[in-house]
Amino acid sequence: MEEKLSASISRTIQTKLVLPPDTNHMGTIFGGTVLSCIDEIAAITAMKHSKKVVVTASIDTVNFLSSAKVGDILILEGVVISTGRTSMEVYVKVECQNLQTGERTTTTTAILTMVAVNSDGIPTPVNGVEPETEEEKRLFIRAKDRKKRRLKIND
Amino acid sequence: MEEKLSASISRTIQTKLVLPPDTNHMGTIFGGTVLSCIDEIAAITAMKHSKKVVVTASIDTVNFLSSAKVGDILILEGVVISTGRTSMEVYVKVECQNLQTGERTTTTTAILTMVAVNSDGIPTPVNGVEPETEEEKRLFIRAKDRKKRRLKIND
Amino acid sequence: MEEKLSASISRTIQTKLVLPPDTNHMGTIFGGTVLSCIDEIAAITAMKHSKKVVVTASIDTVNFLSSAKVGDILILEGVVISTGRTSMEVYVKVECQNLQTGERTTTTTAILTMVAVNSDGIPTPVNGVEPETEEEKRLFIRAKDRKKRRLKIND
Amino acid sequence: MEEKLSASISRTIQTKLVLPPDTNHMGTIFGGTVLSCIDEIAAITAMKHSKKVVVTASIDTVNFLSSAKVGDILILEGVVISTGRTSMEVYVKVECQNLQTGERTTTTTAILTMVAVNSDGIPTPVNGVEPETEEEKRLFIRAKDRKKRRLKIND
Amino acid sequence: MEEKLSASISRTIQTKLVLPPDTNHMGTIFGGTVLSCIDEIAAITAMKHSKKVVVTASIDTVNFLSSAKVGDILILEGVVISTGRTSMEVYVKVECQNLQTGERTTTTTAILTMVAVNSDGIPTPVNGVEPETEEEKRLFIRAKDRKKRRLKIND
Amino acid sequence: MEEKLSASISRTIQTKLVLPPDTNHMGTIFGGTVLSCIDEIAAITAMKHSKKVVVTASIDTVNFLSSAKVGDILILEGVVISTGRTSMEVYVKVECQNLQTGERTTTTTAILTMVAVNSDGIPTPVNGVEPETEEEKRLFIRAKDRKKRRLKIND
Ligand SMILES: CC(C)(COP(=O)(O)OP(=O)(O)OC[C@H]1O[C@@H](n2cnc3c(N)ncnc32)[C@H](O)[C@@H]1OP(=O)(O)O)[C@@H](O)C(=O)NCCC(=O)NCCS
Ligand SMILES: CC(C)(COP(=O)(O)OP(=O)(O)OC[C@H]1O[C@@H](n2cnc3c(N)ncnc32)[C@H](O)[C@@H]1OP(=O)(O)O)[C@@H](O)C(=O)NCCC(=O)NCCS
Ligand SMILES: CC(C)(COP(=O)(O)OP(=O)(O)OC[C@H]1O[C@@H](n2cnc3c(N)ncnc32)[C@H](O)[C@@H]1OP(=O)(O)O)[C@@H](O)C(=O)NCCC(=O)NCCS
Ligand SMILES: CC(C)(COP(=O)(O)OP(=O)(O)OC[C@H]1O[C@@H](n2cnc3c(N)ncnc32)[C@H](O)[C@@H]1OP(=O)(O)O)[C@@H](O)C(=O)NCCC(=O)NCCS
Repeated sequence: MEEKLSASISRTIQTKLVLPPDTNHMGTIFGGTVLSCIDEIAAITAMKHSKKVVVTASIDTVNFLSSAKVGDILILEGVVISTGRTSMEVYVKVECQNLQTGERTTTTTAILTMVAVNSDGIPTPVNGVEPETEEEKRLFIRAKDRKKRRLKIND
Repeated sequence: MEEKLSASISRTIQTKLVLPPDTNHMGTIFGGTVLSCIDEIAAITAMKHSKKVVVTASIDTVNFLSSAKVGDILILEGVVISTGRTSMEVYVKVECQNLQTGERTTTTTAILTMVAVNSDGIPTPVNGVEPETEEEKRLFIRAKDRKKRRLKIND
Repeated sequence: MEEKLSASISRTIQTKLVLPPDTNHMGTIFGGTVLSCIDEIAAITAMKHSKKVVVTASIDTVNFLSSAKVGDILILEGVVISTGRTSMEVYVKVECQNLQTGERTTTTTAILTMVAVNSDGIPTPVNGVEPETEEEKRLFIRAKDRKKRRLKIND
Repeated sequence: MEEKLSASISRTIQTKLVLPPDTNHMGTIFGGTVLSCIDEIAAITAMKHSKKVVVTASIDTVNFLSSAKVGDILILEGVVISTGRTSMEVYVKVECQNLQTGERTTTTTAILTMVAVNSDGIPTPVNGVEPETEEEKRLFIRAKDRKKRRLKIND
Repeated sequence: MEEKLSASISRTIQTKLVLPPDTNHMGTIFGGTVLSCIDEIAAITAMKHSKKVVVTASIDTVNFLSSAKVGDILILEGVVISTGRTSMEVYVKVECQNLQTGERTTTTTAILTMVAVNSDGIPTPVNGVEPETEEEKRLFIRAKDRKKRRLKIND
Repeated sequence: MEEKLSASISRTIQTKLVLPPDTNHMGTIFGGTVLSCIDEIAAITAMKHSKKVVVTASIDTVNFLSSAKVGDILILEGVVISTGRTSMEVYVKVECQNLQTGERTTTTTAILTMVAVNSDGIPTPVNGVEPETEEEKRLFIRAKDRKKRRLKIND
């Protein structure tokens, strides 16, 4: 399991048109809908890296910086940024594109920990990852700090 | 807006039977499904407190401590634990009950910040809250610390 | 199977925010959506009492006394009120809470018969029930009358 | 509004393939799914008769005589069998067809009262109905008895 | 497998009320929703003819001649019009009925090829079909031409 | 409206995990689910090109060359390949990736015609397109032939 896989193997893009059922009665998207999309793309990203079924172990604090409304387009990008023995950290960026202006704003970013499991649900080893972009390299380096912070938060 | 409302006004309970569409092909519930339920109960809880439409501003780190599978029952409880001028912190506890044994395990707990908005989406003031149980009082006191920590995480 | 379980074991509460997909194009909730929620809570209630999988054998006449619209909150409560050898009567009360005024109106009440089944779908015995509240005691006593009336209706 | 419309104008047929999300984890259809389909076809049937938006006022006792499982086909038929000033009685028959054998069994029958409403939700007059088949004529004649019985049940 | 079954055995009718979740934010139905309904009725139609599980092999060019909006009623009719060894051609007609005027317009027609498969997904023989109406007889005769055209399109 | 936009502006990627509700009871994806995904990505693609709301005018013959099953990943790519005055041709490629082997097979390709409409549903002009890849250039050149063939098919 020494082999390191390029981040490009897991990189995943998702485009979603915001529709009425995704929104409250004022036409603004539910936080829960966005969280659900984030979890879905993180799962696909981690499955592509590990070639295994995965479960979500945690999602770090998510701040919703801007909203999206019916008719907007959400663009999600997921990539594995670091790995443990059986776990993978997935970085997800969510942008919202206004149809008329084409303008993009960041809705939120999130870091999730996904764990590869076998058919009995037992954690099972994954390959390491080789970060690609500058952003990914920066996130890779600080993985240990985040792990510590996550544990503290649980106190 | 000086009036403080009892936490009992917002306290909300939800019971959900885990069904095949909520789960992956190994019958384990998706993290996204749980996050979506957490956001929904937090919204209802905050709406009952504020009597206004609300949007999700943030969700603090969520650790999934145990899983749930098809046929299990999820029990969610939400309550407002502190308030700002227009925001409310909602504490959500998710438990999973095994049907055969009746045994309950904590799946996760989460703290969300919900903001009351008017019909133009502009934040609008909310009443304060009077915590009820010991746990709620403890969470109430540490609200400021959490606010600070949330900002730091974003760095 | 002589043991009688307290009604408190099965008592189940559900809170549901009425969303656009639950309603017709005038924003009023579908009867079918309410019936579906009633059946879901009755199933959970009966499963908690019997610790078994259950099927719906019948639902007594349901009158929809008042409506609910997008943005309202539905509060459902289910409880086992009487038992046969393999069947359980579940009483479900549905209230609708207006967000702005906090005012609650009864949308409907319903009585369902749920039957516990084993993995081959064969009816299987359940424990008796000890009613708790005055309302539950009254409903418990008249269970036999309802059983007779149900059979007559089928003629 | 004296004009009587033939039952053939409202007669509506629906065919539904039972899929995994409609069923519990033993592959048996939920009562709530069937009730929801019954309400949907009753609404379409009453809308075709009245050319108006309708709401469900009541559904008479429903007994589920047999079950349906994943891969079965449900065949529903709805028809207006009697009318009041603003209300319509809709008779719904639900049959389940086994794919392999082609054999049909009656899952249930139901009678719903649907009320035509204007855009303010106020009950609004509907045309009378001319029953067609023998079964419809029999149901038409006993409409008054059912109305009485419905009121008694509510006591 | 020489036996020819009457087209009446597979003929299937579906009635669908167009609801907000089926439409874009201008209240017009999605092409994808209509295509999905067409595929569902084609599958049921072919399953009734073959008494087997079926998969969709192809759908011929679909032109959407007119639209449908929230509150309209879609009426779909499917029938097997020709058969090969393991494949069935299903003709689907989609009409849209305006509730107020009762007026019906053709939304589209489509021809799908469905293949009967066994539990390993291997194509398996089906009975022939005896067309009933004039339209079905015309479609039956030109089945070979369509098969040729389909292959050319694939070039 | 003379300005020609690069195909890169509309190019859209979608990744979808095949889940139980997307499949029949043998775990194979429904043709209707794939068609629905194809229409959704075509709509987003055409909206990004035209910055307008779009409706589906037609979808050319779709052949399903291979299947997808629960746990597989579908990768869809959409791009505008030619334009008329108010219409856009969108080319959609659907590939299925097996999780374990990473192997990709083409499930299908499709060409849809999307028409930009204003808020009254009236067709409204769109910019031209500059094809990018070799495949897009080839598809661009043969647009007129396809338009002719489409009309013939309708005869
Ligand atoms: C409910 C069902 C299991 C009963 O089966 P059965 O062969 O009649 O079994 P039994 O005669 O042993 O009856 C079992 C219990 O069901 C009760 N029962 C049967 N039909 C009933 C009805 N229509 N209303 C109320 N109770 C009913 C019996 O009174 C008996 O109760 P008890 O054990 O407490 O005395 C069977 O009718 C069935 O499977 N129906 C379909 C259920 C279903 O799938 N519903 C969902 C939608 S279709
Ligand atoms: C149905 C409803 C419109 C009746 O309103 P109302 O103020 O009682 O109006 P009316 O007294 O004028 O009655 C109108 C018709 O409904 C009938 N009706 C009222 N309650 C009924 C009931 N429980 N069962 C059967 N029919 C009923 C009346 O007999 C009358 O029929 P008629 O005009 O043919 O004689 C009203 O109770 C309502 O809005 N209920 C909620 C409906 C709904 O939203 N259902 C979906 C899920 S909650
Ligand atoms: C359809 C499918 C089973 C055909 O498999 P195959 O290995 O080509 O099998 P065969 O060559 O024996 O062909 C079986 C029948 O399908 C027909 N067929 C195959 N491809 C077809 C196409 N694109 N259009 C129409 N008919 C087609 C053949 O003509 C043959 O019909 P016949 O027995 O009546 O003469 C296979 O292509 C498949 O599984 N496709 C995916 C189906 C699916 O899952 N669709 C849902 C969404 S992806
Ligand atoms: C598509 C639609 C808007 C075209 O309306 P129309 O009155 O024919 O308008 P026009 O004649 O001005 O045609 C507008 C464009 O559509 C194209 N078009 C029309 N019918 C078409 C078809 N079946 N296939 C491909 N393109 C078509 C025309 O070629 C024209 O393109 P151009 O402007 O680039 O030359 C109309 O048929 C419609 O609303 N259809 C229903 C669309 C819909 O709701 N689909 C979803 C499911 S029903």
